[in-house]
Amino acid sequence: MNIIDLTHIINEDMPVFPGTEKPILENVCTLEKNGFREKLMTMYSHTGTHMDAPGHMLVGGKLLDNFDVSTFIGPAVVIDCSNVNHEIGIDILKSYESEIRACDFVLLYTGWDKKWGTDDYFVDFPALTLEACLYIIEFDIKGIGVDTISIDLFESKSFEIHKNVLDSEMVIIENLKNLEELIGKRHIFSGLPLKIEKADGSPIRAVAYSEK
Amino acid sequence: MNIIDLTHIINEDMPVFPGTEKPILENVCTLEKNGFREKLMTMYSHTGTHMDAPGHMLVGGKLLDNFDVSTFIGPAVVIDCSNVNHEIGIDILKSYESEIRACDFVLLYTGWDKKWGTDDYFVDFPALTLEACLYIIEFDIKGIGVDTISIDLFESKSFEIHKNVLDSEMVIIENLKNLEELIGKRHIFSGLPLKIEKADGSPIRAVAYSEK
Repeated sequence: MNIIDLTHIINEDMPVFPGTEKPILENVCTLEKNGFREKLMTMYSHTGTHMDAPGHMLVGGKLLDNFDVSTFIGPAVVIDCSNVNHEIGIDILKSYESEIRACDFVLLYTGWDKKWGTDDYFVDFPALTLEACLYIIEFDIKGIGVDTISIDLFESKSFEIHKNVLDSEMVIIENLKNLEELIGKRHIFSGLPLKIEKADGSPIRAVAYSEK
Repeated sequence: MNIIDLTHIINEDMPVFPGTEKPILENVCTLEKNGFREKLMTMYSHTGTHMDAPGHMLVGGKLLDNFDVSTFIGPAVVIDCSNVNHEIGIDILKSYESEIRACDFVLLYTGWDKKWGTDDYFVDFPALTLEACLYIIEFDIKGIGVDTISIDLFESKSFEIHKNVLDSEMVIIENLKNLEELIGKRHIFSGLPLKIEKADGSPIRAVAYSEK
């Protein structure tokens, strides 16, 4: 079995959604002073590769600690969206219909993870159209993942893709990386969040277990 | 397959190692004010159910981001230490020798997780003797996990068990729970840390995948 790391590194220089703040990772205990190293970490609940709970945007929406842990793991399909023009439409999804039906997670590969750390990461990335979103949430899946900063277009003010997905009691995973390694391969996605009380979201260490 | 959650919840009232501080989970963005919920989380790198890297205590010791992600996952054996008297000695380990040889992780079940949230959690829990520690680190394993606040006795000042385990380039997992559900069952342990740069440690969402 192959384990593929789908997670960006967390550091003080990492990209964050505009309007939020970068993490602070302070070395408060050191070998010299304390005999051990320990950091004090300050970060937003939607930092880096992370998961959104329905309660992130919806009144009465479930929080991550309201889900059974099995919600965060399951077979996934990666949809190759690297050649779409800004919009991920219903046609590309329909071409994966049988795979989506067999899976718990749908992961949208755009290749934008290669732009991580540059201004281009925030610009012109593709996102689901409303029609495509309404198509995908009819399937019995646990969540949708993207390798971009948001599942909505960057310029979206309504967050309608977020809200439709979350209203279906699915989770959203954003800022994934390395999805291209999973195209056409059977794999299990694992996106376990920290067990934070009343978690609207959480950074995760996302991985996939795939065939060699 | 059965997924068992081995993780204590993270909240502002949780027990933390004396001398450190409890997490702060501040609801900085709300549906009413911002249209979405988001928390600002402040916590130490060794909060709750967490992993220690060799660099936690050793000069030049590896940090969690120096390990391949496969280091954090593998077959485990739970050793039932619920009847020992303060010390986990070499004899009990020897009775599991063949199981340890077949595994990547050794998890020590003491039952102290039931005392989580009470003062008793910090008192009189069993820990490995130095002899037992030196025995176990001779095996080709990735890490050792405990359901107590420390792999050393609470009153230890030398942290000799920590240092011997970490010096063998193994990781340590502390504050696990629910290990009794895995006694005698074949299972895969998953203790994926956050992908924090230069991580001396990290909170984890520990789970086990077991036969039904």
